[in-house]
Amino acid sequence: MTQSTFALGLDLGTSSARATFVRCEDGAEAGTATAAFAGGRDGVLSDHAEPELARQDPRAWLAALCVAVREAIGTASGQRGFAVERIVGIGVDATASTPLPVNARGETLAADPRFADRLAAFAWLWKDHTAAAEAREITERARALRPEYLARCGGVYSSEWFWAKVLRCARSDPEVFAAAHSWVEECDYVTAWLCGAREPRRIRRSICAAGHKAMFAVAWGGLPDAEFLAGLDPRLAALRERLYTEAFAADRQAGSLCADVAMRFGLPAGIPVAVGAIDAHLGAVGAGIRQGDLVKVLGTSTCDMAIVEGTTLPRIDGISGIAPSSIVPGHVGIEAGQSAVGDLYAWCARLCGDRPVGELERDASALQVGSSGLLALDWANGNRCVLVDPELSGLVVGLNLQTSPAELFRALVEATAFGARTIIERIVAGGVPVERVIACGGIARRSALVVQTHADVLDRELHVAGSAETCALGAAIVGAVAAGRFADTAAAQRAMCPAPLRVVRPDPARAVVLGRLFALYQRLHDAFGGVAASVELGTVMKELLAIRRAARAG
Amino acid sequence: MTQSTFALGLDLGTSSARATFVRCEDGAEAGTATAAFAGGRDGVLSDHAEPELARQDPRAWLAALCVAVREAIGTASGQRGFAVERIVGIGVDATASTPLPVNARGETLAADPRFADRLAAFAWLWKDHTAAAEAREITERARALRPEYLARCGGVYSSEWFWAKVLRCARSDPEVFAAAHSWVEECDYVTAWLCGAREPRRIRRSICAAGHKAMFAVAWGGLPDAEFLAGLDPRLAALRERLYTEAFAADRQAGSLCADVAMRFGLPAGIPVAVGAIDAHLGAVGAGIRQGDLVKVLGTSTCDMAIVEGTTLPRIDGISGIAPSSIVPGHVGIEAGQSAVGDLYAWCARLCGDRPVGELERDASALQVGSSGLLALDWANGNRCVLVDPELSGLVVGLNLQTSPAELFRALVEATAFGARTIIERIVAGGVPVERVIACGGIARRSALVVQTHADVLDRELHVAGSAETCALGAAIVGAVAAGRFADTAAAQRAMCPAPLRVVRPDPARAVVLGRLFALYQRLHDAFGGVAASVELGTVMKELLAIRRAARAG
Repeated sequence: MTQSTFALGLDLGTSSARATFVRCEDGAEAGTATAAFAGGRDGVLSDHAEPELARQDPRAWLAALCVAVREAIGTASGQRGFAVERIVGIGVDATASTPLPVNARGETLAADPRFADRLAAFAWLWKDHTAAAEAREITERARALRPEYLARCGGVYSSEWFWAKVLRCARSDPEVFAAAHSWVEECDYVTAWLCGAREPRRIRRSICAAGHKAMFAVAWGGLPDAEFLAGLDPRLAALRERLYTEAFAADRQAGSLCADVAMRFGLPAGIPVAVGAIDAHLGAVGAGIRQGDLVKVLGTSTCDMAIVEGTTLPRIDGISGIAPSSIVPGHVGIEAGQSAVGDLYAWCARLCGDRPVGELERDASALQVGSSGLLALDWANGNRCVLVDPELSGLVVGLNLQTSPAELFRALVEATAFGARTIIERIVAGGVPVERVIACGGIARRSALVVQTHADVLDRELHVAGSAETCALGAAIVGAVAAGRFADTAAAQRAMCPAPLRVVRPDPARAVVLGRLFALYQRLHDAFGGVAASVELGTVMKELLAIRRAARAG
Repeated sequence: MTQSTFALGLDLGTSSARATFVRCEDGAEAGTATAAFAGGRDGVLSDHAEPELARQDPRAWLAALCVAVREAIGTASGQRGFAVERIVGIGVDATASTPLPVNARGETLAADPRFADRLAAFAWLWKDHTAAAEAREITERARALRPEYLARCGGVYSSEWFWAKVLRCARSDPEVFAAAHSWVEECDYVTAWLCGAREPRRIRRSICAAGHKAMFAVAWGGLPDAEFLAGLDPRLAALRERLYTEAFAADRQAGSLCADVAMRFGLPAGIPVAVGAIDAHLGAVGAGIRQGDLVKVLGTSTCDMAIVEGTTLPRIDGISGIAPSSIVPGHVGIEAGQSAVGDLYAWCARLCGDRPVGELERDASALQVGSSGLLALDWANGNRCVLVDPELSGLVVGLNLQTSPAELFRALVEATAFGARTIIERIVAGGVPVERVIACGGIARRSALVVQTHADVLDRELHVAGSAETCALGAAIVGAVAAGRFADTAAAQRAMCPAPLRVVRPDPARAVVLGRLFALYQRLHDAFGGVAASVELGTVMKELLAIRRAARAG
């Protein structure tokens, strides 16, 4: 009998880090642990004067990783066949675009005493929306001069992405910008730290983060050209020289675990470390993504992903990212998403007297579809797809003096499912078939209401991924692939991805009511999203009332 | 030294009854007490299957009045000069239109054992909106055949009013309708009970309720003609014969306190009782209304009133009522209003974890105007003016993941002030000048935030009425006038209405921000109210964000 081997997946989310040991032979989880990021509210630093701001202290990531890995080793020890010597590879995923300014040694400027109280020196968390004006400027310049850049990001560059944030830093805190030798994405920063190779030009950057967030493409020689950048700000063109010219897929090795971190983790030094990737993308890998699938990571926000074999890029307006080899090497990765999903549910629970989300969900589950007369837009954190506009906001209509917290909660769940349907319809219209929808992420497993509502709104089956932590599993999978344990990602998925936890079917009666509501959602979407100049809204409240009456009578 | 005289004002609100003794010489309050109505939620009976329904048990009114009067006597006793023998008159006001079916003896059908569990047999509370379809039918028929009827109610007959409710009863519970010998408005029912003269044809009906709610006018011979009613339903034409042919202003005597009720109250029998009136209208009297004033009763809903000397009726579309002598005899009374104001604030407090309204208001007061980025429509209970559409509902836009209960509360306060401004602008556009705005009602005295926000939104001074209970004071005033203690209402007002409690001035900086928000409110109003087919809404969220940024930066 051959001895088991294990891979370690490190998954850095919005508020915490997870470490998971997975057995390469069958995908069994040998041990897992999480540790929360210190600082701010749930690890996120904010500023009352600028509500769009969301930053994070990179040192909190590393500290949390150390805690999580040591604890995961503790839970794994004693599992059949587990030993730290049997770990063949490590993979890393992290939120993106979460870039941070670093000095020439690759150290975060947040650790520089000069900038201890300057939030520009910290990591610019994915959901930071301060760079809306800069994103518009980049979009306009690209539209005029480099339309090919926009063809890969749905026609609009987002305020959540690398160049918008870097430009915003140059404008809003030029001192921090000047002190930055380079900028690094979170997944690359963590990988470099693991490998003890932090000098910016030596880091093997993620093609996934570079392609989806920094307009990096081999087709035009890497990052956007200096002329394009100089027109935005000459300082960006200068920075370009200190960034990178190559980027790598996550099945490639970035380096090996350095002695220093190995000691802090309690692992042997020298374990191969894969190139980093975006958390949701490795979540898709862990969910077993293959061509024809749409994998939906249901978390604080969502990420919707599909892959198409080959290198021909489809053009889909309003879909946030299309990049070769970003999800699975050899396939074009397509990424879309919603800016607030779990975050929206949590907001509702806070608003309604800090009630537990689970309690609200239980009450909301008891309600008849349509009986509240409510309809919401899921834009409380902007719209990432298909309008790609961070300056949109949330809306609720149909309120009456009996409207309850549970009704509001249910309307928000429905709104997120309407948002999901809008994205899938756009992807299909772009020529990418969706034959199977797989949901993963914490909410997919925890919330029967959310999953069922998505099945009903989409009017199709929803597969819930077999793994509770597909991101960490995906990181472990690419860790094993990069280390040579498998021939390719697909082979590793076959060995390591479990069967679906369950398959949820739509309810025909609910699907009809939700279809009526979705038609109204589309009218609000087009009117407030600025899609159509003239949308008839004078009947919306009456139609909601009619739906409500029918639901209560039935 | 002459002895003091006193008048008793009886004020029946949505959830409780108040009794107040007022000294005729100077308006000093000698004693006052309230008693809550039994039954339902805060005295209001409802039905989960039909959320628009709101009913009340008439017996609860009488029971509450007995408690309130006895307690008020207790608090008045010992006051200088007070004695029950010094009471010269009694006035009554009540919510309207709150009609109830009665038998031939004038007794409520709710007391009939056959109908104990039939909500149609109870009083149809003003805020009952079950008769929307019937109101539309009445409006359409009047538009085609009797446009003069609509000229007095802003062009649209409301589901809150007499004929719509009576017709709805005929349709929804024909047995109760058939058992009803007649229908009586709350203020008339109470007056008749006080006078011991309940036989329906003997009741001296209120011109105020009849003119504003039942399309009664001397100009066309009283109630709507039999032909008009028969076209709606032949049973209405038959009912017309059992209603009334005359109606009276509140400065006229309805009768005298009967021995039975006198004993239950602990008062001498025979005290003159004035004809009843709508609560808000006597509130305007108690607030000291004169030509050029707009009196705004800020309660669960609002009532906005103005008077114009003479008998020429202005025509103002979307204003709920215009009737001769309805507020002050010899003047045309103009009534408008908002369906939910205090009710909306209370709903917000319930939604946000059942927090005390005062606590939310305190937090909301600390916020900078515009800093939430929120904008709301105040239609959670329909729109009474100027759209006159009970099928409209509430809306909130500009929500983000930081939106707090206090921000939502403040947005709702602003929305109600925007609704107030919309009404005043319509009245002024109709040729009725508004030179002074007087606020009264519980919220006007209790909430500095609400009053200040109204002053800022209207960008004009707001006078807060001197009396805490202008409705009860107004009832006492007409009680004194009807008893002959004063020559007319104006003379009684001069003697009995106190000086304003305070005069609140608008803040110029806040007025500018609220002016920007009001312009956006108007766009939502016109789009969702169906006023304009095409309203540009694609910029609303961005403008709210700009206002929010400016407020937070400033």
